Amino acid sequence: MAGRKKLNVGMVGYGFMGRAHSNAFGRVSRFFDLGYEPVLRAVCGRDKEKVEAFRETWSYDSCETDWRKLVARSDIDLIDIAAPNDVHAEIALAAAAAGKMVMCEKPLGRNAAEAATMTEAVERAKVPNMVWYNYRRAPAVALAKQLIDEGRLGRVYHYRAKFLQDWTISQDLPQGGAALWRLDASVAGSGVTGDLLAHCIDTALWLNGAIDQVAATTETFVKERMHNLTGKVEPVRIDDASLFLARFANGSLGNFEATRYARGHKALYTFEINGEEASISWDLHDLHRLQYFDHRDEGIVRGWRSLHVTDSDHPYMKRWWVPGLQIGYEHTFIHQAADFLDGLASGKPAAPTFRDALMTDRVTDAVLRSAASEKWERV
Amino acid sequence: MAGRKKLNVGMVGYGFMGRAHSNAFGRVSRFFDLGYEPVLRAVCGRDKEKVEAFRETWSYDSCETDWRKLVARSDIDLIDIAAPNDVHAEIALAAAAAGKMVMCEKPLGRNAAEAATMTEAVERAKVPNMVWYNYRRAPAVALAKQLIDEGRLGRVYHYRAKFLQDWTISQDLPQGGAALWRLDASVAGSGVTGDLLAHCIDTALWLNGAIDQVAATTETFVKERMHNLTGKVEPVRIDDASLFLARFANGSLGNFEATRYARGHKALYTFEINGEEASISWDLHDLHRLQYFDHRDEGIVRGWRSLHVTDSDHPYMKRWWVPGLQIGYEHTFIHQAADFLDGLASGKPAAPTFRDALMTDRVTDAVLRSAASEKWERV
Amino acid sequence: MAGRKKLNVGMVGYGFMGRAHSNAFGRVSRFFDLGYEPVLRAVCGRDKEKVEAFRETWSYDSCETDWRKLVARSDIDLIDIAAPNDVHAEIALAAAAAGKMVMCEKPLGRNAAEAATMTEAVERAKVPNMVWYNYRRAPAVALAKQLIDEGRLGRVYHYRAKFLQDWTISQDLPQGGAALWRLDASVAGSGVTGDLLAHCIDTALWLNGAIDQVAATTETFVKERMHNLTGKVEPVRIDDASLFLARFANGSLGNFEATRYARGHKALYTFEINGEEASISWDLHDLHRLQYFDHRDEGIVRGWRSLHVTDSDHPYMKRWWVPGLQIGYEHTFIHQAADFLDGLASGKPAAPTFRDALMTDRVTDAVLRSAASEKWERV
Amino acid sequence: MAGRKKLNVGMVGYGFMGRAHSNAFGRVSRFFDLGYEPVLRAVCGRDKEKVEAFRETWSYDSCETDWRKLVARSDIDLIDIAAPNDVHAEIALAAAAAGKMVMCEKPLGRNAAEAATMTEAVERAKVPNMVWYNYRRAPAVALAKQLIDEGRLGRVYHYRAKFLQDWTISQDLPQGGAALWRLDASVAGSGVTGDLLAHCIDTALWLNGAIDQVAATTETFVKERMHNLTGKVEPVRIDDASLFLARFANGSLGNFEATRYARGHKALYTFEINGEEASISWDLHDLHRLQYFDHRDEGIVRGWRSLHVTDSDHPYMKRWWVPGLQIGYEHTFIHQAADFLDGLASGKPAAPTFRDALMTDRVTDAVLRSAASEKWERV
Repeated sequence: MAGRKKLNVGMVGYGFMGRAHSNAFGRVSRFFDLGYEPVLRAVCGRDKEKVEAFRETWSYDSCETDWRKLVARSDIDLIDIAAPNDVHAEIALAAAAAGKMVMCEKPLGRNAAEAATMTEAVERAKVPNMVWYNYRRAPAVALAKQLIDEGRLGRVYHYRAKFLQDWTISQDLPQGGAALWRLDASVAGSGVTGDLLAHCIDTALWLNGAIDQVAATTETFVKERMHNLTGKVEPVRIDDASLFLARFANGSLGNFEATRYARGHKALYTFEINGEEASISWDLHDLHRLQYFDHRDEGIVRGWRSLHVTDSDHPYMKRWWVPGLQIGYEHTFIHQAADFLDGLASGKPAAPTFRDALMTDRVTDAVLRSAASEKWERV
Repeated sequence: MAGRKKLNVGMVGYGFMGRAHSNAFGRVSRFFDLGYEPVLRAVCGRDKEKVEAFRETWSYDSCETDWRKLVARSDIDLIDIAAPNDVHAEIALAAAAAGKMVMCEKPLGRNAAEAATMTEAVERAKVPNMVWYNYRRAPAVALAKQLIDEGRLGRVYHYRAKFLQDWTISQDLPQGGAALWRLDASVAGSGVTGDLLAHCIDTALWLNGAIDQVAATTETFVKERMHNLTGKVEPVRIDDASLFLARFANGSLGNFEATRYARGHKALYTFEINGEEASISWDLHDLHRLQYFDHRDEGIVRGWRSLHVTDSDHPYMKRWWVPGLQIGYEHTFIHQAADFLDGLASGKPAAPTFRDALMTDRVTDAVLRSAASEKWERV
Repeated sequence: MAGRKKLNVGMVGYGFMGRAHSNAFGRVSRFFDLGYEPVLRAVCGRDKEKVEAFRETWSYDSCETDWRKLVARSDIDLIDIAAPNDVHAEIALAAAAAGKMVMCEKPLGRNAAEAATMTEAVERAKVPNMVWYNYRRAPAVALAKQLIDEGRLGRVYHYRAKFLQDWTISQDLPQGGAALWRLDASVAGSGVTGDLLAHCIDTALWLNGAIDQVAATTETFVKERMHNLTGKVEPVRIDDASLFLARFANGSLGNFEATRYARGHKALYTFEINGEEASISWDLHDLHRLQYFDHRDEGIVRGWRSLHVTDSDHPYMKRWWVPGLQIGYEHTFIHQAADFLDGLASGKPAAPTFRDALMTDRVTDAVLRSAASEKWERV
Repeated sequence: MAGRKKLNVGMVGYGFMGRAHSNAFGRVSRFFDLGYEPVLRAVCGRDKEKVEAFRETWSYDSCETDWRKLVARSDIDLIDIAAPNDVHAEIALAAAAAGKMVMCEKPLGRNAAEAATMTEAVERAKVPNMVWYNYRRAPAVALAKQLIDEGRLGRVYHYRAKFLQDWTISQDLPQGGAALWRLDASVAGSGVTGDLLAHCIDTALWLNGAIDQVAATTETFVKERMHNLTGKVEPVRIDDASLFLARFANGSLGNFEATRYARGHKALYTFEINGEEASISWDLHDLHRLQYFDHRDEGIVRGWRSLHVTDSDHPYMKRWWVPGLQIGYEHTFIHQAADFLDGLASGKPAAPTFRDALMTDRVTDAVLRSAASEKWERV
């Protein structure tokens, strides 16, 4: 451990994701034995008082109120962008230009064009880069990947994913501003397509390969909401719901849906994959479990197996407690930090890189195009 | 009971559905107190030996090998068509012309044109008629209908349904012939669209009203199979999988999928409805349960309720055992028979009539058109 | 089928169990190919009007109001006792003396002494006999038995069973009389010990062998209830709850509990067996499923398998519908009737015989003794 | 936050519990706003190399190899005992004598006599004290407590708890030594009774009040194991399984069971409480959920509610992420640390204190006495 290199982190953002990322960098060395040790060097946010309070709570060494200053600091190795979508691109470009490693919250850009610029920037600068599609690192999801890579499913016929929430149903909920920028299209880029479907797509591309074509529809159920920044009732320009059919390059059919109007579901991200020999399903509300069906099992005792993914031979789990004791949401970020640091040490960059995440933005772009054209669109 | 009128049933078909219908007519008077009592007067099938064995097992009074003779018999009140799809239309037309009541297995026709002819025939003849979309009569599904009719869901945002099976994955499975006519497009009309999606659509129209438009895709995963009737390997012309997005007249979005390539699912028909105030979901693998979420519940104890639909105040259940004791698949047919007979007595015909079922065939037609055109299609 | 022998059934009782047994005898020949065909010859009940209505509904040929007359009839082969516990013994003795086959609802006697007399009577008369412990014939429970007999569990460490209901919690519920004789100790013999624990014990003896010793406690939560027959508030003399620890002859430990005061459970009979290599669990609220865990599965995909016991290679299921379509409570009786008739044809009597059921009464006797003595008691 | 007092922690033990406690003290200030801030001042363990590595990983300021030195240090405010059971008493006594606050892993003593001495010591010294019965702080369990305290259950009839594991089934597993002291009676005091049942009892006493009497049985399935410290095969003196019936002071009946021979269960701690009006159940394998049944719900929509305990109005949860995102096992320790620190600030000591935990040891003593005497024993 004595030989571990320090990695100085500069965090941009102190909201929900700022906390999740800070916790990840603060915990990872306690549980993983890595070549790099992250140091919480500085956090940056626009509100001086709030950023100072955040600094103290999370034991950052210092804070900034202008991200340009953070990027300019020579004592920072890594810029981690945990700010709203509309600033991802400019910060990433500046950070890459300054030779910093860059990590960025998802979605990478507000659209594929933005994401492409960012991808070119980090690749040109040859800086390590990664996007926080954290659900890849839920141990159950990583186990799904392992089972697929081992060829257990055989030919895949179906991929099905949903991300269901219900927190914007009330018409009285305003749009825009600090807590509600996800409802403001100019900041977020899109609604559930970029916020929720992007997660579904990232996992799908990882587990099942490229998507060729999509046929989509979107809907905005509540047409107008008070805008926090203008104080006026304004049209809602994001999509509240987004559904699409897909054709994967491997010949399988995709069915994707995201909405914030599914009463009873807080954050129900689920996927299911049906292969010739085996099927897999998972959901975020019980993220420590994986459902697995293997047709090769003897007939009379064949059934869906509920895997409690807490054993030491399950992905990531030997780092934690003992079998039967579950971990939670925040651990997906800790695992992602661990894999990023491991990639630095090994020279094999951990996925998803900016380029991987750009592919997701290309799919979400195609989804929005198809919703507008009412036709199938190529990715 | 002494005053019950006899209703003489002539059954066409002695396969899976012939058994289910015969059981329904044989059991219904034991458990329901009705104005009409069905009498198993005759069963008709092409194979003399088999139909005689069926007659004996099910205690029919007589049997026929030509459905025309059955239709011509004066001692028959009701013709029940439990034969493959390709004979639905001609039998129904003849039965209506002979002034018989007509019940018919689903889907009504191989396509909407056939179904329209059949609908016109029974309406012109003014004979009672019904189609066996039996899942409406699962007590849990009937309870869903009741909760919706009571207005508990509020504005509906989403309707989602799937019918997943896995029994045709093997490439060695032949097509056509007695047991496998569902894989022969000339007999079945279509694949999972008419066989499985039709169930999903019938329930959806009943619970959530009309579907305006659809965008669909279909796939045939196994392109050729040995044909049982020709003995040759022939192209498979049915759809193995069929998915579609829908827009309902009430403004909600639909997501439908059926397949016979979902490894691990035998007959998993599921639906979920998300309303402003409440949500409902159900699946056929545990058909005696309904999942219900009510947002009006107090926050700290708000959650999905697993309703074990076996109480005497649940639809149909006071006719059966005691709370906690479940019924099964075959009871959906018994309930449908009961409702049909009740409709005869009351003069208020039970749904779905031929006209109701014609609407389902119009949706499945639109689905197949959309899959071909790769565009949205109006129903 | 032409060669099937008729078996003339005389039913005693027209309550809940009278219906279940009548349905079983009425359905069994439709679904099972047997050497004997039951004929519903006569039903007997004390109320002339009610028994006549029951006769008509269930298509019995005739009815009686005095069971002695039924027993004396020469056209009756089998006396099936579906009447309250207090008349089991005298009817069974008379039936055996008359050379009739005897089937009897559980528990066999109100206590082991009664049950012993009955057992001696049928054995002395050498008449076929059986007790309706119907849950052995749930396909999932029969599958559990098969898996155990195949040695899949290895050495058994634990057996756990509960039967939880909640229908007598209200203090306003009276005791005694037609519908509530189960609360009247003089009729029922005991409370949940004989009514519910008896089911748990019968299954346990079948699946896990003899019970040597028990340590029990019982409780009567509501001490007084209005008695329907006297019209007065009288002490409640049955046990409302009964729990016991057990030691099986095979060295495993048992944990049993039954109650009618478990709010939220209508008829939740559950059991779980933990063996060295595998475990099994089941519950009556989803009776078509069996949970199975096999430690020999590969570690990373080891988990509880939820078996949907509806395949044609599962016990009894090839007689019913197609995979995925569940059956219900009443089918356990149909299966038991089938096995009884099969036993007649083969000469290998189906279990549980009166002697098997006597063993259950001996355990319930020991439970009640232990509750009184506050010590361990040998069975 | 500037006004927070430092609380200097001296940790004894660097095993599984040493990690869990260290993590709790290291995280609590990040997520909770408290009057005290714990400082990881020193960790103590017998192996110099290992304790130094642990110090570095967990960022303790210093380390010790002799707990007496740690207790003697003037810069330590709190001694936290995370070492095996056989040293709990002497460390606690010394720490109390030195005027330190004391926290101790459960069970408090190897038996009630030891626990009584410890309780007297901390009370005499008037030092804050607490025992790590961490499951009280799972948000779902804390919610159960809240619902009970609000009177929602009404009169309680039944309390049922199990703690099922399967990790010691193999006969080849040795006993004793660092990793396996829980199998060595001289270190652990007892087997599953003190290790697992103690958790069940602590929760039960908290949720349902005092236990008056117990009737128990225990078993040691594997009679001999190689001992890691002697290198010889020696008798196993712990209990592998322990079951007891209980009578609570409030008139309800208890049913408790713990075992390490329940194949398929890694750490399945479950409890269920049945009250007149409502019932509750919980299990550790899905610790973020609580099952709740309320009989006052309207009949047709009455069912068990699956509460996903992740909302901001659920206990502890406003400190974490957003609704739908679950936390895990380790958070129960963080919550307990928070409550302890809160108790220091408020002057209202958080439970369970040593005195509370002594009551649990009195019940486990009674369980072991009853298993030996084969009679009911008073607590």
